[in-house]
Amino acid sequence: MKRRDFIKSAGAGGLVAGSLAVAAPVVHAAPRFKWKMVTTWPKNFPGLGTGANNLAKLITEMSGGRLKVKVYGAKELVPAFEVFDAVSRGTAEMGHGAAYYWKGKSEAAQFFAAVPFGLNAQEMNGWLYYGGGMKLWQDIYADFNLIPAAAGNTGVQMGGWFNRQINSVDDLKGLKMRIPGLGGEVLRRAGGTPVSLPGGEIYTSLQSGAIDATEFVGPYNDLAFGLYKAAKHYYYPGWHEPGTTLESMINKKAFASLPKDLQSIVMNACKVVNQDMLAEYTARNNAALHTLVTKHKVDLRQFPDDVLIKIKQLSDEVVNEIAAKDKQAKKVYESFKTFRDQAMAWHKVSEQSYMRAREL
Amino acid sequence: MKRRDFIKSAGAGGLVAGSLAVAAPVVHAAPRFKWKMVTTWPKNFPGLGTGANNLAKLITEMSGGRLKVKVYGAKELVPAFEVFDAVSRGTAEMGHGAAYYWKGKSEAAQFFAAVPFGLNAQEMNGWLYYGGGMKLWQDIYADFNLIPAAAGNTGVQMGGWFNRQINSVDDLKGLKMRIPGLGGEVLRRAGGTPVSLPGGEIYTSLQSGAIDATEFVGPYNDLAFGLYKAAKHYYYPGWHEPGTTLESMINKKAFASLPKDLQSIVMNACKVVNQDMLAEYTARNNAALHTLVTKHKVDLRQFPDDVLIKIKQLSDEVVNEIAAKDKQAKKVYESFKTFRDQAMAWHKVSEQSYMRAREL
Repeated sequence: MKRRDFIKSAGAGGLVAGSLAVAAPVVHAAPRFKWKMVTTWPKNFPGLGTGANNLAKLITEMSGGRLKVKVYGAKELVPAFEVFDAVSRGTAEMGHGAAYYWKGKSEAAQFFAAVPFGLNAQEMNGWLYYGGGMKLWQDIYADFNLIPAAAGNTGVQMGGWFNRQINSVDDLKGLKMRIPGLGGEVLRRAGGTPVSLPGGEIYTSLQSGAIDATEFVGPYNDLAFGLYKAAKHYYYPGWHEPGTTLESMINKKAFASLPKDLQSIVMNACKVVNQDMLAEYTARNNAALHTLVTKHKVDLRQFPDDVLIKIKQLSDEVVNEIAAKDKQAKKVYESFKTFRDQAMAWHKVSEQSYMRAREL
Repeated sequence: MKRRDFIKSAGAGGLVAGSLAVAAPVVHAAPRFKWKMVTTWPKNFPGLGTGANNLAKLITEMSGGRLKVKVYGAKELVPAFEVFDAVSRGTAEMGHGAAYYWKGKSEAAQFFAAVPFGLNAQEMNGWLYYGGGMKLWQDIYADFNLIPAAAGNTGVQMGGWFNRQINSVDDLKGLKMRIPGLGGEVLRRAGGTPVSLPGGEIYTSLQSGAIDATEFVGPYNDLAFGLYKAAKHYYYPGWHEPGTTLESMINKKAFASLPKDLQSIVMNACKVVNQDMLAEYTARNNAALHTLVTKHKVDLRQFPDDVLIKIKQLSDEVVNEIAAKDKQAKKVYESFKTFRDQAMAWHKVSEQSYMRAREL
């Protein structure tokens, strides 16, 4: 055998061996992970809690069981409002909630959930994924050892259930309403009394007259909760929560311990749930509103324009004050506001103009 | 050693061995798949083509490279309008396009892309995922050996670029406009002349006066295409495409050959892209509209109400005729229409009422 032939022959042999190695089962290191997901929702709460369940299921499914996520309702492992801290210190690897719950940690966090007269669901996604919002959110949560993700949206909520008609700004005076957060502060400035009540006390307080009104979510959740039996008037629109983004938060160290494919699966599962929850609310709110109006004869009313103008003015005041509180909040608000102004201009000629034309 | 101690000891040893087996790398059969994705878009076409690229990238990433997807632009492997057949017969495992291209295969397919005066993006997702739409779509494509998925959305498109003002229904008479599909048929019934033109001929035809008007997509694509240099008036809203759903289609046999985790990854990657593309258009249309109006001084106009009323009436006629053509189309239209009626009622008190209030 000539030297040249020998080399050729060895080369061919090498090629065959190479092909076989590719075709044969690959020895694949497949470490398995078990994660806990703590949530701010009662276990299986329709829409929000089931969205968290859906997120866990998707991760388990896409990872072929290599990353199993177990969901804990509020109080099962930690109370609702300790979810942020629990994931931050690694008690759980993952959480599901809404960023406005964490304003005690960061004033700026509120912009990533819902802002009175802020962005709707579609606009929130535009801002977060393509308008710089997600980067700002990541920077803020990084200080707490967390990675945030948008993981659900309720769409535009309802204004709430009222046992008094709201015919003018004066009717807000003395109104005792269960309305937390920024919306509550706006009501206070309009002369009302915002009340904080746990979910379990809302219905009886409304029925007994201890409160005059309550906001909750939208037709799907409100119908299931039976609020139409405790109040007469159902007002819209939900100016205080125009497209509430739910969040998932992931412990940074736990995330870093995952191989790249599982990291991608976790972050993309959040995106799937983000869209899926909005689709669910869009479909179920339709049907529930229909039931409320036709079967339960609910009195559906729009807030009068002068009331909306007044609360918008007060909302702007409140939001501007938050932005003035710290540098981070100011930076986020500026990005949010710039996006909102352009989104309003675009949606005036697209979504708004179209929906109006469809009704003509 | 007593017998009891021996058993205890063996048991303990067994436990240790068990733990080790779990901790050690598992021999994992990891077959690798290479798929081709054919698309109806020019390679890398902004928004639509890049959405298809994004889909391929996500699948590759989430699968850790176990399923690699290579994207082919229109004509690279098959012409745009042969994508459906190519995936149906397995020439490619996957495709990306829009369902209204396949009305020659099934009249009902059109309902899964865009219907004049139909559902917007958020409503399409509600109908598909929670209103029975996806099941109907699956049934229709099953006959062609295909699995469909929503995989992108443009949001509400623009009405188009016009070199004539449209001040009344009469101005549509004799109008030569590039507008394909159902929108074109509506224009024909209004006395205009719908023209079919490949993308590459639109600009020059508009500039030379061979056509008076063209629809395209929305500000982001239209700005890049330079249409503002060829026509004076930019009309809204895009009544003919109020939230066009892009699709992915997957060859059934290729899908069945995947393990369950990869099947889940493929279907969920489609969902991610479905949301992501809408977010991209929402953000980029904002910015592009701003540039068109402020920098290029585009004359932005809303179609007059009497024109919208007339074309809505003609649209209903056209869509009803499609539904009358076959049993499948009738079934899909009934589901679509029921959802639209309820979605309109809900969005009147939510999205519409909110966007109006925000502007007060």
